[in-house]
Amino acid sequence: MEKTLKELADYLGGEVIGDENIKIKGVMTIDEAREGYITFVSNIKYLKKIEETAASAILVSPGIAAKGKNLLVTKNPYLAFAKVVDLMMNPEKVYPRTLDSSASVSDSAQIGSNVTAYPFVFIGENVKVADNVVLYPGVYVGDDCQIGKDTIIHPNTVLHKGTVVGERVVIHSNTVIGCSGYGYAPDGKTYYKIPQVGITVIEDDVDIGANTTINRGVLGETRIKRGTKIDSEVMIAHNVEIGEDTLITSQVGIAGSVEIGNNVILAGGAGVAGHIKVGDNVQVGGWSGVIKDLPSGGTFLGTPAIEIERMRKIKDTIKDLQKKVKQLEERLGPDQK
Amino acid sequence: MEKTLKELADYLGGEVIGDENIKIKGVMTIDEAREGYITFVSNIKYLKKIEETAASAILVSPGIAAKGKNLLVTKNPYLAFAKVVDLMMNPEKVYPRTLDSSASVSDSAQIGSNVTAYPFVFIGENVKVADNVVLYPGVYVGDDCQIGKDTIIHPNTVLHKGTVVGERVVIHSNTVIGCSGYGYAPDGKTYYKIPQVGITVIEDDVDIGANTTINRGVLGETRIKRGTKIDSEVMIAHNVEIGEDTLITSQVGIAGSVEIGNNVILAGGAGVAGHIKVGDNVQVGGWSGVIKDLPSGGTFLGTPAIEIERMRKIKDTIKDLQKKVKQLEERLGPDQK
Amino acid sequence: MEKTLKELADYLGGEVIGDENIKIKGVMTIDEAREGYITFVSNIKYLKKIEETAASAILVSPGIAAKGKNLLVTKNPYLAFAKVVDLMMNPEKVYPRTLDSSASVSDSAQIGSNVTAYPFVFIGENVKVADNVVLYPGVYVGDDCQIGKDTIIHPNTVLHKGTVVGERVVIHSNTVIGCSGYGYAPDGKTYYKIPQVGITVIEDDVDIGANTTINRGVLGETRIKRGTKIDSEVMIAHNVEIGEDTLITSQVGIAGSVEIGNNVILAGGAGVAGHIKVGDNVQVGGWSGVIKDLPSGGTFLGTPAIEIERMRKIKDTIKDLQKKVKQLEERLGPDQK
Repeated sequence: MEKTLKELADYLGGEVIGDENIKIKGVMTIDEAREGYITFVSNIKYLKKIEETAASAILVSPGIAAKGKNLLVTKNPYLAFAKVVDLMMNPEKVYPRTLDSSASVSDSAQIGSNVTAYPFVFIGENVKVADNVVLYPGVYVGDDCQIGKDTIIHPNTVLHKGTVVGERVVIHSNTVIGCSGYGYAPDGKTYYKIPQVGITVIEDDVDIGANTTINRGVLGETRIKRGTKIDSEVMIAHNVEIGEDTLITSQVGIAGSVEIGNNVILAGGAGVAGHIKVGDNVQVGGWSGVIKDLPSGGTFLGTPAIEIERMRKIKDTIKDLQKKVKQLEERLGPDQK
Repeated sequence: MEKTLKELADYLGGEVIGDENIKIKGVMTIDEAREGYITFVSNIKYLKKIEETAASAILVSPGIAAKGKNLLVTKNPYLAFAKVVDLMMNPEKVYPRTLDSSASVSDSAQIGSNVTAYPFVFIGENVKVADNVVLYPGVYVGDDCQIGKDTIIHPNTVLHKGTVVGERVVIHSNTVIGCSGYGYAPDGKTYYKIPQVGITVIEDDVDIGANTTINRGVLGETRIKRGTKIDSEVMIAHNVEIGEDTLITSQVGIAGSVEIGNNVILAGGAGVAGHIKVGDNVQVGGWSGVIKDLPSGGTFLGTPAIEIERMRKIKDTIKDLQKKVKQLEERLGPDQK
Repeated sequence: MEKTLKELADYLGGEVIGDENIKIKGVMTIDEAREGYITFVSNIKYLKKIEETAASAILVSPGIAAKGKNLLVTKNPYLAFAKVVDLMMNPEKVYPRTLDSSASVSDSAQIGSNVTAYPFVFIGENVKVADNVVLYPGVYVGDDCQIGKDTIIHPNTVLHKGTVVGERVVIHSNTVIGCSGYGYAPDGKTYYKIPQVGITVIEDDVDIGANTTINRGVLGETRIKRGTKIDSEVMIAHNVEIGEDTLITSQVGIAGSVEIGNNVILAGGAGVAGHIKVGDNVQVGGWSGVIKDLPSGGTFLGTPAIEIERMRKIKDTIKDLQKKVKQLEERLGPDQK
């Protein structure tokens, strides 16, 4: 399905600099792109590659010039790239839209229209599955779960009893949602398990990666709010609440009863200790350990995580000490002893 | 199932301050509790919330006073909370207690009484499963495994060949026990895989979280001792031995041939390098990296993990240097050059 | 199957010091070894145990002497140990070499000779599976995947659409390969998912541990090259390229578009930020965070990861400051104020 550069510009609401009739077959990365393809720059450090690419056109932001190149200018070239890939290279998957005879579906489950359950899916008692849901092979849906329409759950993922999943949610493979959390009361001899009788709620438009674990509430709930995106190999403990449109990247760990705001970014491998509050629009650097509440809007780094400006100060403190000691030594001159 | 506060006090061995005839319907968190519910304080920093809660009663330790509130005083309110939730809100799950026709059970397996095998369970050759064991959908039990009575294994968990699991063990979803470990001998050109012919032993009353991996011994065994509780997304390598009643929280990583004592706590994200010994009653802080043997009884923090007192000293060293340099500068007065 | 020490020496290309006719039944660790067994020293810190072991023989490197002990001397005792275990204690597993009737195999799949598909295996459209492949229970093979001969995939592992796996690859349980990666473009209101239309390629002789996640390319591919060994609980993001014979140990996290060279070692819990290049023969210490390109051949440690020599310098800087300040104080004498 070829498109002219003009057709793509119209689709994206962008502007062409160069030959608007050139034919585009698809999208390729800037290193691999050949004639007939459009490309883009994913990272500012590769900007100079625009000059060298063999691509027939390049998605760029306003103000970028490249002599002799065909440019498609939009305010948000990364978004434009995503939309062109979806348009030209991402055919919609056709699902069977039936319950396979090798799936195990309880009689009390309420299943909507056009639901796909692949072989070896297990659906427990009193489960509600809305229209167009896709359950891949080996998915386990415990008793009393609810799954909203257009949601896709990838192979071997487990939803424990009572989990509520919204609409247009995507959960990747081998992930565990609504697992009984980790809580033990010492009883003088050994540990008594704190019963975990709450649930987990995943709101609309949330994505969750592979091999991630999200526990249910002890009482009440663990809640992931609308539009939040969680990566793979992440751990989220009981009674955590994560706001809207927040990004939780891979290998992040969030301990019990943490509250995280809206539009937060936790970079890979960061951790948050129990009962901490993280405000809106906070950014936490990779491999940082948060052990104090973080106010809205700051950028924090290190373990314990501190504001990025204060981190620079610690390095400066040592450099400053070195300089001052050298000055003192010079002023005293060589030791006469 | 309502109870009076007096009935709860008798059940727990506690004492009522206030109205012992008040009816309790269940347990709620201190923020959400309404009339008719009992609550508790999970964290010392919420203690002042006792005054504001709408709960009909509060579980407290001796010595806590709250005018006009009904208190149920026990030595261990956290344990009391767990017991009341179990009593009032945690109905025992009723299992089918049969082998589902969609489970695959080898002819040579010995299966006890009242065992539940849900659909898509696989049980290999010469496996022994004791009475009342529950195997959820998708559980894989490799050849020669043994599972003790009253043990519950959650969906899609994998027990590899020869794994021995004790009684009353709980293993959560998508966890892998007895996996072949990571060992390679360089042979001059590439790597030769060290064969892993040992097993994994999980003793009685151990809990293991979701998405956790525990490797088997190279020779001999990996052993998790009685009463130890392991959280989710944890990695335990070959030939590790973990003592009794030890707490291993989420995302902890333990390298090969490590020995960990009894009553140890490893906080979230901590790691222990290969061949290290950690004594009894040690506590290791979150995200710490242990690279030296740790004697019994201390608290350790940081990477490399050092005693918490020494960590404070490093910060003090820099502050002390700043102070001394300032004093020296003052004594020398302004530089005349 | 007993062997004489001479037979083992001939098999390994080694030399006997002591009684070459002594009979060996198997291999045991140095602490547990009894008469009739051969042992070895896994770690230099246990070298003195050679004197105390009850083993009938010990695998050692040239130059190690132990009076009255039977020694089998080879250049690489660790490799020799592995080969003796394989010879004497690691019977080859006998597979059914058939497709179980409880497996779900699409009509369009091309299945080679002697392939084993255990119950509850799912094989999608247009999959190609070469000779002697073993797919354990619950394995999911998405549409268009290719699996090379003699490859073994352990229970409940998921290969997503289009994944290409080489020959003699081993993938452990509950691992996810070719998962859609984590990429979102902010669109002014919320996030637009970057479509992930690439694939993952696992070359020959790669091993991958349990509960590991490897994403596919956004465009193009994620590629793990020949002979590389990846441990458990590892996260590898989209478009990563890992060289040959590289060791990625447990809980390592590698962000998008990272390039890692040949013969690299990333120790447990290390992380690499996006778009970083790591040269050949680099070693990165445990729990280190790599945020700058690393040239070939160095050893790096800490977060941000720096050369091990520079790390020592920071500690030395503080010690040096303490020493100089003390000297300055002594030269000025007691403060008279």
